[in-house]
Amino acid sequence: MQKIKIEEKAVEDLLMKLAKVGQVGETGVSRLAYSPEWVEAVEICRAYGSAAGLEMRQDAVGNLWARLEGKTPGPVIATGSHIDSQDPGGRYDGALGVVAGLISLAALKEQAGQPEHTLEAVVLCEEEGSRFPTSGFWGSRGIVGKITPDDLQTTLSFAGEPIGAVMSGIGLDPTRVAEAVRGDIGAFIELHIEQGPILESADLPVGLVSAITGMGQFEITIDGQDNHAGAFPMDLRRDPMAGFAEIASSLIDHAHRLGRPAVTTIGQCKIEPGGTAVVPSRVTFSLDARHPDPEARRTLYATQDRLMSEICARRGLGYSRKQLINLEPCQSDAAILETMKTAANHLGTPHLKMVSGAGHDSQQMALIAPVAMIFARSAGGRSHTPEEFSTISDCTVGVNVLAQTLYQMGYGPPAPETIVQMDQRPVMH
Amino acid sequence: MQKIKIEEKAVEDLLMKLAKVGQVGETGVSRLAYSPEWVEAVEICRAYGSAAGLEMRQDAVGNLWARLEGKTPGPVIATGSHIDSQDPGGRYDGALGVVAGLISLAALKEQAGQPEHTLEAVVLCEEEGSRFPTSGFWGSRGIVGKITPDDLQTTLSFAGEPIGAVMSGIGLDPTRVAEAVRGDIGAFIELHIEQGPILESADLPVGLVSAITGMGQFEITIDGQDNHAGAFPMDLRRDPMAGFAEIASSLIDHAHRLGRPAVTTIGQCKIEPGGTAVVPSRVTFSLDARHPDPEARRTLYATQDRLMSEICARRGLGYSRKQLINLEPCQSDAAILETMKTAANHLGTPHLKMVSGAGHDSQQMALIAPVAMIFARSAGGRSHTPEEFSTISDCTVGVNVLAQTLYQMGYGPPAPETIVQMDQRPVMH
Repeated sequence: MQKIKIEEKAVEDLLMKLAKVGQVGETGVSRLAYSPEWVEAVEICRAYGSAAGLEMRQDAVGNLWARLEGKTPGPVIATGSHIDSQDPGGRYDGALGVVAGLISLAALKEQAGQPEHTLEAVVLCEEEGSRFPTSGFWGSRGIVGKITPDDLQTTLSFAGEPIGAVMSGIGLDPTRVAEAVRGDIGAFIELHIEQGPILESADLPVGLVSAITGMGQFEITIDGQDNHAGAFPMDLRRDPMAGFAEIASSLIDHAHRLGRPAVTTIGQCKIEPGGTAVVPSRVTFSLDARHPDPEARRTLYATQDRLMSEICARRGLGYSRKQLINLEPCQSDAAILETMKTAANHLGTPHLKMVSGAGHDSQQMALIAPVAMIFARSAGGRSHTPEEFSTISDCTVGVNVLAQTLYQMGYGPPAPETIVQMDQRPVMH
Repeated sequence: MQKIKIEEKAVEDLLMKLAKVGQVGETGVSRLAYSPEWVEAVEICRAYGSAAGLEMRQDAVGNLWARLEGKTPGPVIATGSHIDSQDPGGRYDGALGVVAGLISLAALKEQAGQPEHTLEAVVLCEEEGSRFPTSGFWGSRGIVGKITPDDLQTTLSFAGEPIGAVMSGIGLDPTRVAEAVRGDIGAFIELHIEQGPILESADLPVGLVSAITGMGQFEITIDGQDNHAGAFPMDLRRDPMAGFAEIASSLIDHAHRLGRPAVTTIGQCKIEPGGTAVVPSRVTFSLDARHPDPEARRTLYATQDRLMSEICARRGLGYSRKQLINLEPCQSDAAILETMKTAANHLGTPHLKMVSGAGHDSQQMALIAPVAMIFARSAGGRSHTPEEFSTISDCTVGVNVLAQTLYQMGYGPPAPETIVQMDQRPVMH
């Protein structure tokens, strides 16, 4: 089998060119959806693809597609990631998968010519929700048909602008978002930085992602009775802080004891009335809990709910739980995973089969196609910060595994188990 | 011994007259220091005292003094409380002691004539810190000489006004604050609502306060490492929320196990960066811990410090503790307590000897005179809220105990153990 070869310099050049657009400090990037920096970054991608002889097209939502037409009509093998960033984030989150897709298609065209099956690399317009807090996965939602006309009015930026108006402002036509929907994607593969420390602690450059974890975010409210911090004895208090502390300890310890890949995080907490000398009346906190196994995830949430309600009942505190986000776990397609493994082995690349604890565009794409992901090692597991870092060597190893996988899937006759027909694709959770 | 008799109607009339000044909703009061409502309330007190034939005088800080001159020159027996309120607070906090002092002196003048020793009732201008967050005890601090010229510039309202400028605005002369200092107070007695549930649970109308608890307020900072809530496994986290939860549980449980009168409250908490999907980097929280026994208080703080630093060290978290407030416990004068007890027994008033968990002006007055306090029962232990409530019956029982105590101390020859000469008064902690 032919080896597709991508050099570190190609990856470094395009990645660092994008890193300068919206640069913050030495290593930070702030490239918010539909901003001038975003427009500039998309144009860099368009110019790169055009120069490589790829057919470039921007859809109604603002996703940029690079196409390498295959000899045989049929489902498209797609790859890509998002071009927007946190505010500020780092140079690699999203950008690596964008760079990888464009460079892979350019390299495949140059080194292997026209493919049997059409390949596309997509520059997804938005994933982070860093300008419009409720817009997360906007680009991939557009492709899978999960943007409603209402969303264009009700999805507001932190500054209060409706996303539809902002799109119009840069020449997109929001009335045509439905035209961005794709019904012809046969597979989607995303390269992304890990954003965690697992590859680093395993001393491996890349991971093959077998599943994206399922996420639940909840808002929990504990009600007690506010009282004077000096005059009200401990034994007569109904202190929601005491209940919160026991709950937070219990939930964090419980997830720790379950072991990987279960995680539970309490990242926000509001205390009312919030006086230093006042026993609180109410503690409201955020609970983020994740597990990639559907059954284990249900059990996790049920156990947490029982723990919290028992603790509150025992302490005479009010308890309520509101689920704000529920993202089902997303299993990678077994056939694509197997192809990625063959590709990595063919390149002599050591790798880890692992689970993604973070959410990704691939979860949306899974609604219309089989998906799988490749992770590149993150230094210290840092992300969503300018401190985010991956070596160019690790990034390039990831791009090579992606390109080799696309080669195996796109060139030569389709293996029935790697290209799944649209009407036969497995139901996603 | 003569019984001084004060009717419920007198207490109710003056208390409810004040309750209308700055009224919020049905039962709330917002009477911030030096505000138009404050000026109006002080004028009501001045008019009441003048009508009763008391000699009225306002000092440079804005405290209003009502004087009933004694036959014998010497130290003054003083009573009173503060006229300002929380924003909004209730009708009784501070106001009860103001009303009690004025009515007691008026009743003593009418029912017992000129006293042997001079009596004064003071309407303290400020105690709550509800307009100027760092001004707490401003009135009594003026009397004991704890206001510096700097304080007039650096004590700012929530709106940013220096307290000195606000004082000038209502005709006080802040350059003369030193003139408010008193060197001739021989005893100070304060009637106040309990602000806790102890009298209610003991089914008693009044308490005789043997000590005001000592208070420490600390700002605690726990430092960890922020990471992605999904991608970073539990076993590799340094999560300051996990440390905070264990600390909050430990401290609250520890104070509970120590039993009354130890209390510990965590009323504020700030989580950084504060994302729902981000393991926090830092948790900062307020710690309020009180005990009336000096030795037990030192042990409490040392134990808490050791617990917190052990938990943080074990979890690989940074720990720092900054003390913001340190109010030493204040023991009531044994002789005044004994006189109050005799007075209560003479009136047939059942009472509880108890500790104050809240801070009071009496703590400041203790720097220049022996002090003691009387508490009136609070409904449900509620205070610093419009829901604060005490029955007029309980309030009047408290006023009668105060008036009877003042009668015993102010009429007839001084008992050496109740009037302590200035150069012989015990050193306060």
